[in-house]
Amino acid sequence: MNPKVGTITTSLIREIAAKRKPSSIDLGLGEPSLKPNPEHLQAGMDYAFAHGLRYTMNAGDPHLRAAVAEHYNYPHMRDAENVCITTGSQEATYAVIKTLLDPSKDELLVVEPAFPSYAKMAKLEGVDVRTVAMNENDDFAFDPQRILATLTPRTRLVVICSPCNPTARAIDRDAVHELSDALFRLGGDPVWVLHDEIYREQTFIEDAGYFASVYPYTVVTNSLSKSNALTGLRLGWALTPSELSPSIVKVHAWLTSCADTFAQQVALHVFRTPHALREHTHWYAQQRERAIEVLEESGLRYIAPDGSFYACVRLAEHANSLATAHKLADEHDVIAVPGIAFGDCFEGWLRLSWVKEVAVFAEGVRRIAAFVKEGPAAIRL
Amino acid sequence: MNPKVGTITTSLIREIAAKRKPSSIDLGLGEPSLKPNPEHLQAGMDYAFAHGLRYTMNAGDPHLRAAVAEHYNYPHMRDAENVCITTGSQEATYAVIKTLLDPSKDELLVVEPAFPSYAKMAKLEGVDVRTVAMNENDDFAFDPQRILATLTPRTRLVVICSPCNPTARAIDRDAVHELSDALFRLGGDPVWVLHDEIYREQTFIEDAGYFASVYPYTVVTNSLSKSNALTGLRLGWALTPSELSPSIVKVHAWLTSCADTFAQQVALHVFRTPHALREHTHWYAQQRERAIEVLEESGLRYIAPDGSFYACVRLAEHANSLATAHKLADEHDVIAVPGIAFGDCFEGWLRLSWVKEVAVFAEGVRRIAAFVKEGPAAIRL
Repeated sequence: MNPKVGTITTSLIREIAAKRKPSSIDLGLGEPSLKPNPEHLQAGMDYAFAHGLRYTMNAGDPHLRAAVAEHYNYPHMRDAENVCITTGSQEATYAVIKTLLDPSKDELLVVEPAFPSYAKMAKLEGVDVRTVAMNENDDFAFDPQRILATLTPRTRLVVICSPCNPTARAIDRDAVHELSDALFRLGGDPVWVLHDEIYREQTFIEDAGYFASVYPYTVVTNSLSKSNALTGLRLGWALTPSELSPSIVKVHAWLTSCADTFAQQVALHVFRTPHALREHTHWYAQQRERAIEVLEESGLRYIAPDGSFYACVRLAEHANSLATAHKLADEHDVIAVPGIAFGDCFEGWLRLSWVKEVAVFAEGVRRIAAFVKEGPAAIRL
Repeated sequence: MNPKVGTITTSLIREIAAKRKPSSIDLGLGEPSLKPNPEHLQAGMDYAFAHGLRYTMNAGDPHLRAAVAEHYNYPHMRDAENVCITTGSQEATYAVIKTLLDPSKDELLVVEPAFPSYAKMAKLEGVDVRTVAMNENDDFAFDPQRILATLTPRTRLVVICSPCNPTARAIDRDAVHELSDALFRLGGDPVWVLHDEIYREQTFIEDAGYFASVYPYTVVTNSLSKSNALTGLRLGWALTPSELSPSIVKVHAWLTSCADTFAQQVALHVFRTPHALREHTHWYAQQRERAIEVLEESGLRYIAPDGSFYACVRLAEHANSLATAHKLADEHDVIAVPGIAFGDCFEGWLRLSWVKEVAVFAEGVRRIAAFVKEGPAAIRL
């Protein structure tokens, strides 16, 4: 047995999700509640009936690869060869970590709070992980100076998910420029940035920044999961500079061979339909406004979402978020994700998703606020 | 960069396939030419329209997992928990190799001739690979004694693809019993067997053997790719004993999260439709008879297929299969896969697929036979 597999612990997110009952107010959801646009699905189906479902090239259908590259039009990755189509952004992320990092000497730097997958993938690869905590007093805004101060000579990859799961903060253009310039000036072997753009189409601020626009050592991962309510389609991609593309494709080819041809045809229809990637964006923007109203009324401290479909709330000082999440599930039938799942710096917080009816979100927040006001000793650290 | 990625060489199969022209007689194909049954696709589509496409559990839809376990009904893996649904059998194989083998001490034993993926996956994991050649004089029949003689104390996993890509040989029940009994008697840490059953529904002999029926340390990988002409659906599974299942699911969860929900619904319809897994079997059996007639008439030495949709032919003594495959492509417009791609012991052979019209196969074999009779010095080793 591979001892690295044994070191990976169970997901706290799933531990709490397992307590969900039919009656539960579920604010733990990490996926859209909208239905996908049937036109995209129909396009995939029409293709399948006409042509069957054969393998594509390992890197994906050339038309889809070209459409993805053209859509984002990032300076160092404008051609089909810069795109590798994958089984969701999860496989893209895995392939990037596996390709870019030498377990014998390289380190991954994860900007926290962060979704736990990056660190777990690295551990499964035997790669050392360092983390850097953003500042709670600044509502966990992305802070280039903190990130730069944590780099070591071994750091070869920095992972930034923006808009962020869980904090819902988005990095702005100035911070992207500041960090990129400093990384570029380091010289020597480049420090790569993995920008996880999974919530790109749920961005609500005007000055959101994109590393791939300015920093040549950027890899972008994304998918149709959140933008088009197609989590179950498992269609994602890695956008990489040409020097990296053949290696990424090689690793992807041995992990899964190629992505689903039906899913690739659905994606091709999305990319060929003007504005289809943003067909749900307006709904999320409206939903966000209502969620903020609910949070304002609750009296809880919360982080106003720059993006994504989450909002995080602060528990009482010294509160244990995991114990709180269990108690909320067991005694108040509310499912919320404990902050500790996203790094030590997010202890004392809960991640709430507002993808369902606002009334459901409001009822969940009401129960959480009442619980926080009680402030039982049992939930203290 | 991960140095292991650099050690993986380009696929010889793809090197030859890249020479394919619209006019080519393509006997290199590794996938069905049949169309999939549209009823299965429609079932997936009906589900998607009604429910959208949400994530499933990491290990897959519980109904599908149960249906797969029940269908095969192998003694040590009869429950849903013994099934992990994956992105094709490729990801299943990757997860098995990654989970079962400790790169610091374990070895993988590949029974050759073999598809190159097992060894390349192991190399990507830093796992040492040993190979054992089956006997050309015995038409590369699976030989338990040769396999047993190659085991070392470090061998923890033996990969057997039966029916075999490329040889089209299938292991029989007696050989499975002989090998299983001997492995079981070894004691100590078990030697696992990975039985790749991808061509199971293209088996044409009566006494084909299945390790999972008799040997408790068996993992089975399979998919709908070959049975139902759904290579592009990327829907496969690993069947594992309960002691191994949680680890396999954990690795799969970080590689790709979960399989495509549309694909899982298609698969559920296949498993719930009586005999649907074998709906193409009769066609292949007929096609095989005609392919054998063609080969008999050609005068070439060939291996009569026990299973799969390949037939292999012998070139002249000391022939270089890669140079021959290039020359056949360049000068005779025939695409055939060089034996050397499947291991040193298969040098001098070509793998031909007979998935298309028999007339196409016959014309390709005619050109190859004429070429072999010429026996040009240029193609000698």
